[in-house]
Amino acid sequence: MNRLITLLTDFGLEDEYVGVMKGVILSRFPAARIIDLCHGVAPQDLRRAAYLLESSRPYFPAATLHVVVVDPGVGTGRRLVLMEAGGQLLLAPDNGVLTLPARSGFTAAFEVSCRELFLPNVSRTFHGRDIFAPVAAELAKGMAPAAVGRRLSREELVLLPLAEAEIDPSGTAITGEVVDIDRFGNLLTNIHLNAYQELAGGLPPATAIVLLRGRMINGLSPAYGAVPPGTLLAIFGSRNYLEIATNQGNAARELEIGRGERIVLRVKG
Amino acid sequence: MNRLITLLTDFGLEDEYVGVMKGVILSRFPAARIIDLCHGVAPQDLRRAAYLLESSRPYFPAATLHVVVVDPGVGTGRRLVLMEAGGQLLLAPDNGVLTLPARSGFTAAFEVSCRELFLPNVSRTFHGRDIFAPVAAELAKGMAPAAVGRRLSREELVLLPLAEAEIDPSGTAITGEVVDIDRFGNLLTNIHLNAYQELAGGLPPATAIVLLRGRMINGLSPAYGAVPPGTLLAIFGSRNYLEIATNQGNAARELEIGRGERIVLRVKG
Amino acid sequence: MNRLITLLTDFGLEDEYVGVMKGVILSRFPAARIIDLCHGVAPQDLRRAAYLLESSRPYFPAATLHVVVVDPGVGTGRRLVLMEAGGQLLLAPDNGVLTLPARSGFTAAFEVSCRELFLPNVSRTFHGRDIFAPVAAELAKGMAPAAVGRRLSREELVLLPLAEAEIDPSGTAITGEVVDIDRFGNLLTNIHLNAYQELAGGLPPATAIVLLRGRMINGLSPAYGAVPPGTLLAIFGSRNYLEIATNQGNAARELEIGRGERIVLRVKG
Repeated sequence: MNRLITLLTDFGLEDEYVGVMKGVILSRFPAARIIDLCHGVAPQDLRRAAYLLESSRPYFPAATLHVVVVDPGVGTGRRLVLMEAGGQLLLAPDNGVLTLPARSGFTAAFEVSCRELFLPNVSRTFHGRDIFAPVAAELAKGMAPAAVGRRLSREELVLLPLAEAEIDPSGTAITGEVVDIDRFGNLLTNIHLNAYQELAGGLPPATAIVLLRGRMINGLSPAYGAVPPGTLLAIFGSRNYLEIATNQGNAARELEIGRGERIVLRVKG
Repeated sequence: MNRLITLLTDFGLEDEYVGVMKGVILSRFPAARIIDLCHGVAPQDLRRAAYLLESSRPYFPAATLHVVVVDPGVGTGRRLVLMEAGGQLLLAPDNGVLTLPARSGFTAAFEVSCRELFLPNVSRTFHGRDIFAPVAAELAKGMAPAAVGRRLSREELVLLPLAEAEIDPSGTAITGEVVDIDRFGNLLTNIHLNAYQELAGGLPPATAIVLLRGRMINGLSPAYGAVPPGTLLAIFGSRNYLEIATNQGNAARELEIGRGERIVLRVKG
Repeated sequence: MNRLITLLTDFGLEDEYVGVMKGVILSRFPAARIIDLCHGVAPQDLRRAAYLLESSRPYFPAATLHVVVVDPGVGTGRRLVLMEAGGQLLLAPDNGVLTLPARSGFTAAFEVSCRELFLPNVSRTFHGRDIFAPVAAELAKGMAPAAVGRRLSREELVLLPLAEAEIDPSGTAITGEVVDIDRFGNLLTNIHLNAYQELAGGLPPATAIVLLRGRMINGLSPAYGAVPPGTLLAIFGSRNYLEIATNQGNAARELEIGRGERIVLRVKG
């Protein structure tokens, strides 16, 4: 067995932290295959890590092991958890970064307490290197998930209060918020395509209206390039969530909008 | 067959986009070998991607597959193209990023229309994941280039009007421009060593003069460190193009010069 | 033989330089395994490269080849050196980036002069690509270190004057300085845990006092999260050196402190 390992951290690439984690993994398992999922999560931004992981999982092979090191509680009593979900493994601090798979259904969860696998001297500040990396190496090599420690129930897991979009009582609109902003300045929301389709029935996308910060966008675009350069548009993006963008521009910068901004998708009427 | 795959995008590394592309490639071809060529191209900067690709190609193995995802037209009717050039494969949107190999000679080009290879649900905003990645996986595995779709003639390809340096009618100078600025603040131009050598004949590099923004640099340096720290210099750099740099400094910042700045290399007289 | 290769450079990831080095290595040795140790060293920052390399080496497999390209003297007469240390190989310019292994003991050092291995046209500005990469490929493949050139004595190596922490004559305090700042804004110092432990004997960490820029921190923390969010703390970090941090904050930004800042660890009295 040789599980693909992905790394998702808030380490950035300015320091040696990611490289050193790979060194430890390869010291324990020279044939390991390691992919950087993303290291651009802002320090301690659990929410963003949770969303990134969720939108990425489906695109990785079955049996992939995702290692998430966004860990403000490093060195305190916080647990480490190994979760089986969708045929993959998720190794993370038990601080809410696994809220979405915990909500949507997972196969099993275990507390990571296999100290004999950790590096001999566990530091108080870098468990990515001292605990996550060596445990990941053993799991990638084929160690059974249950071997990391006792089983955890769903109730024992720490969850984040991640905002969910809400359908208006009248059934004509969905209210959500901006949950992420990407490099292109696109505003990614928590309004899912499924919620829209349920409400819209057969209505054409051109009749939908998006409202945010006093602005109104008429209709949903079939592509960024379907409107003139510099024009604001709404589109169901690659994560299947509603996204606000400017064709060849940067919507976040132009609108001066950040995460948490309220957004309404009026589907009819 | 296992072609080396390189990725050249404007995705940056703040988001999960590059990681997810690798996930799709490895889902389809677990033995794939993937190298990040560069993800630091500014959003939609086709010109920079074109130059980076061109200066990098010679340093990669024969049969390498370069995947270029700088794609402002994603989701519109723009074509995807697979080009064979110099024994390598280039997979890119047909938007001009392949202008330089299209100009300098290529073996064949094909329109990518093999829908059966795409991901089942092709989004409107992320063809890097939904189209480029799965097609790249099949090509790396050994699929014949011609299997992606019909042959395209040179005339069908979209080209960018990339500036070329011009030799003065008097045959004493070359006029070009700054086409890129790198991390060190070096100003990279489109004045090629060959053009200089043709004009210079046997003249010593010390007699050349470089003019930009009212500044004059006397002679071409044999190395950054051949002048005192903080001194401006001109040198034929690693891409074989004329480069303006400050030894242990940042020429772009100091001169406040950006891309497009005119530059003259006076070779004699 | 297939030595793991790591790359430590000041190239950043905005340009194609790192990707191209990998292209050359893989052209010469298709089975090469390459890890990015770090490319975020500031341009020409030899000191930071020296510290990063030193704290990373122990976490990589025996026989790893670390390639360091922070090379302000590229194209001048500066030597390239191959060092054997701790069972690993270090390939670098002879400009002081190997000061720490040169001090702490190495097995052998050689001048890299095997021109027949270099790329046919060695540029004046990018030896990472033209010299380091092809030589690294051969070493990874199994070439004997001594084959790169003549043996160098310790006296021939260029060393940097890297500051060492000093124990107060009274034996009650250690004076050091901030030598690095990481992405989290943590201030990393040159005060080593061993020096502290020697002085402290059995004294509890709570009795230690840290002084910097008119501030006093009482006691050493067992974890970042052992103090309330936003609170300044002192901790022996993952490199085993004293570190100043703010729990869930950015100490460097809050204190406006940079490298070189004096720091005193009062152990008793």
